[in-house]
Amino acid sequence: MPEGAGGGEFGHPAFALHRGGKMEIRATVPVRDRDDLSLAYTPGVAKVCSAIAEHPELVHDYTWKSKVVAVVTDGSAVLGLGDIGPEASLPVMEGKAILFKQFGGVDAVPVALDCRDTDEIVETVARLAPSFGGINLEDISAPRCFEVERKLQERVDIPVFHDDQHGTAVVTLAALRNAARLTGRSLGELRGVISGAGAAGVAIARILVEAGIGDVAVCDRKGIVSRDREDLTDVKRELAGFTNKVGLSGPLETALDGADVFIGVSGGTIAEAAVAKMAKDAIVFAMANPNPEIHPDVAHKYAAVVATGRSDYPNQINNVLAFPGIFAGALQVRASRITEGMKLAAAEALAAVVADELSADCVIPSPFDERVAPAVTAAVAAAARAEGVARV
Amino acid sequence: MPEGAGGGEFGHPAFALHRGGKMEIRATVPVRDRDDLSLAYTPGVAKVCSAIAEHPELVHDYTWKSKVVAVVTDGSAVLGLGDIGPEASLPVMEGKAILFKQFGGVDAVPVALDCRDTDEIVETVARLAPSFGGINLEDISAPRCFEVERKLQERVDIPVFHDDQHGTAVVTLAALRNAARLTGRSLGELRGVISGAGAAGVAIARILVEAGIGDVAVCDRKGIVSRDREDLTDVKRELAGFTNKVGLSGPLETALDGADVFIGVSGGTIAEAAVAKMAKDAIVFAMANPNPEIHPDVAHKYAAVVATGRSDYPNQINNVLAFPGIFAGALQVRASRITEGMKLAAAEALAAVVADELSADCVIPSPFDERVAPAVTAAVAAAARAEGVARV
Repeated sequence: MPEGAGGGEFGHPAFALHRGGKMEIRATVPVRDRDDLSLAYTPGVAKVCSAIAEHPELVHDYTWKSKVVAVVTDGSAVLGLGDIGPEASLPVMEGKAILFKQFGGVDAVPVALDCRDTDEIVETVARLAPSFGGINLEDISAPRCFEVERKLQERVDIPVFHDDQHGTAVVTLAALRNAARLTGRSLGELRGVISGAGAAGVAIARILVEAGIGDVAVCDRKGIVSRDREDLTDVKRELAGFTNKVGLSGPLETALDGADVFIGVSGGTIAEAAVAKMAKDAIVFAMANPNPEIHPDVAHKYAAVVATGRSDYPNQINNVLAFPGIFAGALQVRASRITEGMKLAAAEALAAVVADELSADCVIPSPFDERVAPAVTAAVAAAARAEGVARV
Repeated sequence: MPEGAGGGEFGHPAFALHRGGKMEIRATVPVRDRDDLSLAYTPGVAKVCSAIAEHPELVHDYTWKSKVVAVVTDGSAVLGLGDIGPEASLPVMEGKAILFKQFGGVDAVPVALDCRDTDEIVETVARLAPSFGGINLEDISAPRCFEVERKLQERVDIPVFHDDQHGTAVVTLAALRNAARLTGRSLGELRGVISGAGAAGVAIARILVEAGIGDVAVCDRKGIVSRDREDLTDVKRELAGFTNKVGLSGPLETALDGADVFIGVSGGTIAEAAVAKMAKDAIVFAMANPNPEIHPDVAHKYAAVVATGRSDYPNQINNVLAFPGIFAGALQVRASRITEGMKLAAAEALAAVVADELSADCVIPSPFDERVAPAVTAAVAAAARAEGVARV
């Protein structure tokens, strides 16, 4: 233990809480005597193994495979900390695992990988797939995260879901649906601006377009992502193809002029003057953590609805509203993947939880609203069946 | 569910017990409200991640790494079932995991791999190593298991332990120590014969030689493994170099003539006439499961001590007597590997548990003897310190 433990830097209560880790394995069957042992282990277990060898689908009935998700990272883009490596990322992966259990009843195991090459990550996780019912990718840096997810899903027959992309996108869409409803508009009437073209920004743009937003422009550090830019990565070039229909170019402020929606997932800041130029009944989701792109009190001077990523302001855009139910629903029907339709269904179900409580300070439920996970689970399972990816 | 579920083949009580799997994840910290969440997850968790990034050894203090073992298989040699593949092996790996917890307080996660190439297995598990405090290899077929263990241990700084080899070897040595003591002999006075040159046979031969047995000959299907045979694999050639000092050749029966000890890990059978020719006060460990190489009642006609792998006869040679305590001890001191000295210490501690209760029907404790795991744990931790592989 380094100096300072127990005080100073290590005096923060998070250290006491994390000591020894945050999770454990528990047997769900008794192992008290020889009879127990002869059923849970040899010789009884051999009958179950033989049955699965003969009828492979029985692995879902007689093991924990269909209850358990691997939370996979390479430690390259952890929270706001960046590339801290696999070991230092483990507290986040354990945290994620206990949220899976607490909010979705899903067992989850942290798997922090000591490799960085995209194909190596894909190959490694594909080899692990027999043991798990799903793969939650976490904190893998863009643009590698896009390729890892796509290639891995091509390799395995269980859902692969990069939560930094799709969890954020689903919750954002749900909040935006309700904000639009509150201000009497349809998604098709809205023009949005996203600040940040990383994992979250790209996925939010994609789901908003799929959900039918009027138009959306994405901005990276160099300004609006547009077809005429010649410095774009493959992913941003693809983005330019289905966003920014009006062909804006220039800085973020240009896009924000007259826009209905601002969505910040960049970690940067925006000036009050830029927000002041947004359209009437503007919607501002300033989701950077811990410092929103614009202070919510300032945003409220101009916007009808304000949301952040913080728990100490109303309307927290928190992924925990989505990923536990999405995986619980996918696992329930043994889905082979998580389709766009399942994500859209998750967002609709999440938005609908608010129902009559809808107000400017309540466009999204609290993470502790117990109606959330069951609603998302049911919607995702139904969508999986409708889309033909369910196996039961 | 195939026809017959709930009756016939699937009527065995093991199926009801295995439904839904045998284990789950449990949070060991509260996640009831925003304050809990802000410590266990963002923003509090970031402080812990940063501390580990700065002081890597803190991963042992603030995550479950040092409590958790991966139970890794490729499903190629599962129980007596053989090559049934990764999914069908999962009930065994889950069983192993709950035994780790029940008997050693060690968390364990089943990892059944969809790959067979030795180097691929090594590479895959090495990439997983940051998430775990140890690797228990399980049910990987010989001779690949030897190479996987050796190469993997060269790659990672956490213990790698192939239980089918060393767990069996440790418990066998413990039982043999006590059988020798009971019959008034030292290990150095004994000549042994092992039937079976797979994972267990090779490891037992190795530990008996290290422990100082007078001589031991190993037999495979073609007879005694001897230096003059030209059909030997690399592993068996190595075996021939340190066993069978007197240079026996021919069938098992030749070796057994006048031998003091028979150890069966082959799954075959031996004739009563061959056992009848063993030396006075013979020791017979007929460990094949479920059918011992010779029925214990028949063996008792000639042998002073008889042990089997079965729970319904006295002296059950059961790996669960070793692996939970061995890993618990290694994890306790954050050992970088499990040395030969640690295995010998485990065997001595296990033998010593019997103490004054030593009798022909009690050369090894019951798996449910609660003194076993603490004794093995303490001995292994002390040996790790003595051998310089402990890190705390």
